[in-house]
Amino acid sequence: MVIIMKAGASAQEVGAVVKHIEQVGMRAHLSQGEERTIIGMVGDERPVDRTVFELMSGVDRVVPILRPYKLASRDFKKDDTVILINGAHGHPIKIGGAPNPIALMAGPCAAETRDQIMESARAVKQAGAHILRGGAYKPRTSPYSFQGHGEDALKWMAEARDTYGLAVVTEVMSPDQVPLVARYADILQIGARNMQNFALLNAVGLSMKPVLLKRGMMSTMEELLMAAEYVLSNGNYNVMLCERGIRTFETYTRNTLDINAVPVLKALSHLPVIVDPSHATGKWEYVTATSKAAVAAGADGLIVEVHPNPALALSDGAQSLTPERYTKLVTQVRRVAEAVDRTI
Amino acid sequence: MVIIMKAGASAQEVGAVVKHIEQVGMRAHLSQGEERTIIGMVGDERPVDRTVFELMSGVDRVVPILRPYKLASRDFKKDDTVILINGAHGHPIKIGGAPNPIALMAGPCAAETRDQIMESARAVKQAGAHILRGGAYKPRTSPYSFQGHGEDALKWMAEARDTYGLAVVTEVMSPDQVPLVARYADILQIGARNMQNFALLNAVGLSMKPVLLKRGMMSTMEELLMAAEYVLSNGNYNVMLCERGIRTFETYTRNTLDINAVPVLKALSHLPVIVDPSHATGKWEYVTATSKAAVAAGADGLIVEVHPNPALALSDGAQSLTPERYTKLVTQVRRVAEAVDRTI
Amino acid sequence: MVIIMKAGASAQEVGAVVKHIEQVGMRAHLSQGEERTIIGMVGDERPVDRTVFELMSGVDRVVPILRPYKLASRDFKKDDTVILINGAHGHPIKIGGAPNPIALMAGPCAAETRDQIMESARAVKQAGAHILRGGAYKPRTSPYSFQGHGEDALKWMAEARDTYGLAVVTEVMSPDQVPLVARYADILQIGARNMQNFALLNAVGLSMKPVLLKRGMMSTMEELLMAAEYVLSNGNYNVMLCERGIRTFETYTRNTLDINAVPVLKALSHLPVIVDPSHATGKWEYVTATSKAAVAAGADGLIVEVHPNPALALSDGAQSLTPERYTKLVTQVRRVAEAVDRTI
Amino acid sequence: MVIIMKAGASAQEVGAVVKHIEQVGMRAHLSQGEERTIIGMVGDERPVDRTVFELMSGVDRVVPILRPYKLASRDFKKDDTVILINGAHGHPIKIGGAPNPIALMAGPCAAETRDQIMESARAVKQAGAHILRGGAYKPRTSPYSFQGHGEDALKWMAEARDTYGLAVVTEVMSPDQVPLVARYADILQIGARNMQNFALLNAVGLSMKPVLLKRGMMSTMEELLMAAEYVLSNGNYNVMLCERGIRTFETYTRNTLDINAVPVLKALSHLPVIVDPSHATGKWEYVTATSKAAVAAGADGLIVEVHPNPALALSDGAQSLTPERYTKLVTQVRRVAEAVDRTI
Repeated sequence: MVIIMKAGASAQEVGAVVKHIEQVGMRAHLSQGEERTIIGMVGDERPVDRTVFELMSGVDRVVPILRPYKLASRDFKKDDTVILINGAHGHPIKIGGAPNPIALMAGPCAAETRDQIMESARAVKQAGAHILRGGAYKPRTSPYSFQGHGEDALKWMAEARDTYGLAVVTEVMSPDQVPLVARYADILQIGARNMQNFALLNAVGLSMKPVLLKRGMMSTMEELLMAAEYVLSNGNYNVMLCERGIRTFETYTRNTLDINAVPVLKALSHLPVIVDPSHATGKWEYVTATSKAAVAAGADGLIVEVHPNPALALSDGAQSLTPERYTKLVTQVRRVAEAVDRTI
Repeated sequence: MVIIMKAGASAQEVGAVVKHIEQVGMRAHLSQGEERTIIGMVGDERPVDRTVFELMSGVDRVVPILRPYKLASRDFKKDDTVILINGAHGHPIKIGGAPNPIALMAGPCAAETRDQIMESARAVKQAGAHILRGGAYKPRTSPYSFQGHGEDALKWMAEARDTYGLAVVTEVMSPDQVPLVARYADILQIGARNMQNFALLNAVGLSMKPVLLKRGMMSTMEELLMAAEYVLSNGNYNVMLCERGIRTFETYTRNTLDINAVPVLKALSHLPVIVDPSHATGKWEYVTATSKAAVAAGADGLIVEVHPNPALALSDGAQSLTPERYTKLVTQVRRVAEAVDRTI
Repeated sequence: MVIIMKAGASAQEVGAVVKHIEQVGMRAHLSQGEERTIIGMVGDERPVDRTVFELMSGVDRVVPILRPYKLASRDFKKDDTVILINGAHGHPIKIGGAPNPIALMAGPCAAETRDQIMESARAVKQAGAHILRGGAYKPRTSPYSFQGHGEDALKWMAEARDTYGLAVVTEVMSPDQVPLVARYADILQIGARNMQNFALLNAVGLSMKPVLLKRGMMSTMEELLMAAEYVLSNGNYNVMLCERGIRTFETYTRNTLDINAVPVLKALSHLPVIVDPSHATGKWEYVTATSKAAVAAGADGLIVEVHPNPALALSDGAQSLTPERYTKLVTQVRRVAEAVDRTI
Repeated sequence: MVIIMKAGASAQEVGAVVKHIEQVGMRAHLSQGEERTIIGMVGDERPVDRTVFELMSGVDRVVPILRPYKLASRDFKKDDTVILINGAHGHPIKIGGAPNPIALMAGPCAAETRDQIMESARAVKQAGAHILRGGAYKPRTSPYSFQGHGEDALKWMAEARDTYGLAVVTEVMSPDQVPLVARYADILQIGARNMQNFALLNAVGLSMKPVLLKRGMMSTMEELLMAAEYVLSNGNYNVMLCERGIRTFETYTRNTLDINAVPVLKALSHLPVIVDPSHATGKWEYVTATSKAAVAAGADGLIVEVHPNPALALSDGAQSLTPERYTKLVTQVRRVAEAVDRTI
């Protein structure tokens, strides 16, 4: 932590800050500038609350030096984390760690019927996907909207998984749902609205299941990494970070895909980075172009909404691809993957 | 819903849209423009998913006509909702509905010790506050930060409540905490990060306790009203909307207090509007000026962080007022309240 | 400037930074932490480009210590700047510096006809305003929209000024317009879209006329103060800062009035702060409530759109008040002004 | 335009709206819903101000139907615009229109010395670039920062152009600079801060020189297209749209590259789309990854900051690549270009 004193701070005020630094068991280092005094705090600052210093008389600003996350950082672990998913038929899927293949997750927003799930699974498998997505519990802005089929939906996905040799990723919305969802799913998804639902983060942390952690629509990358830290600090190291678009002033698209986040998260963290171009654009017309961009930027996987009949989807139809369009997407993404020395 | 066709949409495409409108039990109304055809849908559109139409061939855009919330809207209930809090000593507190007094909620961010709570309660009561705030469960960005004292903290607040004749508002973070927190608190607070934790909204909706619903830092006013709708649709009509600052590009302050939200929410909804100037600015120096602004704009209450010794606070010290400063704030706010025909 | 080295930076890398600091004529101050080395730079950092250091091997981050503006800061000038406007009939108007009266600027968005201007001037004068606003040159998003009546409009406003004993504020859009506009107007307005039109800032700086500088819709307060610095550094100290709403994700209102900016700008700078609630909300229904909020928060003036017949306005009708509504606004704002020890 | 009446609007209010529609020469089309009446306006709405209607009694909202830009839209011109730049040595460069090659623009942020420009030109030419960038006039946030070498810098670039067989793009900051800059440069750049400097847009529109129009950091895609419309409506059809990152709440990167904008602008408009990954990230480490993403998403060109010695750059050093790194970037981008059927 670096404490920047106000211009004209008195020797007494500087002394009080130094004294408090020593009281919390750290050492102080003074730097007397022409206009201002700067005080460095030496020691592990993570447990120290910086507001204590911000409130002291004569203090202008306090600048943290260390990143607040530890287990999620590249400093802590140099090598890429590779997550092993035990898909159906004993077929392991590796996510993360170039040149491992790009992980392709696809399927409908919501699991609506057994037929829809079976048909989706067949189609995405045929197109080349490895993991089936589908919502059993749906976070909906309106209490009057369809909220998901719950355990029935989980069963349909488990059946599709075994029939077609896929793994399953699905969202879990509250701590008490974790055991049930973990029984059926291979990957637990934390939705964007729950990125800072800390009770839920702790619960999936304890479950030891692989976690797909979506970035909140107005959360910084640092906050995403801190949310990952909640899961990691419970001993569960199988976390994938998912960029799914952030909320900005631009309203033409549903969200703004923060493509910068791909190389930045890869630099700051060892965790795999997945991109969700469906939510990030909100319009199926733009999903293929942004999927290619994500892979070109270094993403380790894509999660894409595919629906056998988007016009009849109960949610998010506008951003869902038909199986035919998804098949074309995979063909095009494969070429880009090869151009960055990856495969599918 | 109004469906705007693309320039050059064919008669067949228009016909398909009309047919689908009729299939979902509504009537269609065509308006043939020079460049485009516009199709109005007549009937209650709330349960109809507009993406169905967005995906149809020849459709450019779909514009919803009705607001998605119903119970929370002024259209549904013309008169201001007045919430009755049964504070300690059988003293009822009315929140909302000018010219009822401005509700003053104050206290520390987190309940840290019994002494700190008792001292805070004494001080804010003396300054003129009616309701004690204090966190027993704290949503913290970092898993390494202090997370709250739980039930012990609830007991301290209940004791302070009875000793000083206050009511108590405190945050509840997950559905399973609701019964416990409801036993001690008069108002259940939903924090900004949980505004779209739908499982939690349903749980407090079923509890019938008054709810202080904080706007998410990334949520529009419409989303806030939809979150309120979750609580209301469970039969709990005692909801207060709380503007606590939104996230913008401005970084000098912790958040941006959306003062527009005060008159807008009062116009769109009958629910009381509370403002939290402490989180909305993040710096105690600006809390008094923005408190006055909130009351001048029409807020029904203020929730302010006050700590007997902000420099030793375990969280959010920088935005906490000392009791002396809070006393001055109340004096100044009282004058502004009178200038808009309210009292304290 | 404080230079934070990466964890594990070598002694050589640290040495190179120190050497470069000395080369630019400053002194270096080392602080050896447990995980990282921090290097303070002693001297006036304003002319030093920090990116030089950001690029050096082993450097993690560079934190500036001094605020980049000087003449605009409270540190530079402790007392409030009071700007003297020489209105019509030799009647001076003082803007800024409590307890000087709140400056009331009002009038139509655009000057449309001589009659409209004369009628507006009469009405706002009668309501209590001191300064007439009206656009002669209009920055319009669309090249097909009405662009203003130019010098004719300036003449109408000058006539209204002399007839009713007002001063005139109007926008100037390019450097070559400055001499002409300065001939007719008492205050030159820089619009939000031109806040970083540096050629224009220099031109109004050289003109020595009082300047109303509007904050860009996505500009930080620091950038606003830097824009003011451009004007001040040309020797023109008569600058008013104007908060007119910023762009955020919220779309219900046209912009988001950053009410925090009022006390913050008053704290960081000695310049008067004016609020424009018409652009900040975009809807006349919310102008009165936010005007009261602005004055309660400490604003030195208000600039409000008033049109004799808003429904026929050529621009921004939706945010314009009728004269009757403006008269009521002034009555209500006067009471709030008195509650914060100001007058009108 | 569609006018949505309030629930409970009277027949008189509806009648008044219809009457006004007819007065402005359009036809009205009524649609009587269960809760609300909707009125469609038939005719070319572009010159009609919708606020007139927003202010009428009983009106809830007004929804525009037509896009406000015309010449810039795909509806107006189906085929991609291809811009011909007459580079040095009579070598034409085509920008836009797949499968034409990706246009590579590169060079320093600011032209600092003749040697720096010559060295940069040599290096970027050798790496494969076609167009040299470099600032002669620099928009700087601070009046105390380096503001550019003006005409000297233009001469250096013209010399480099002829020596190495490149074209030149450089920024023009005010209308009076247009003739001078146009004498030396092949492409006039409008900077992000000037995207809505309408006087400047008109001036470059009249110049007939190709224009590189940067999106404002606070501007929507629609506003960018409206700014292009200003240039086009003056008869200059040689406009390139440039996505250079927008301002969001994320502060780790300097801006957020809106990668969605690439396919969206290509869909809405026929104009070429260029991406500036240097400003969009602000850190050279992330420029290569985002360059690849931009090309994968469909960009027609890249403008990248390259400096022979970034650590000594007078501006934006932190986002500048060394010639060596730029050479690698081009190699990698070439592979991605081929994967989307483009060349360099």
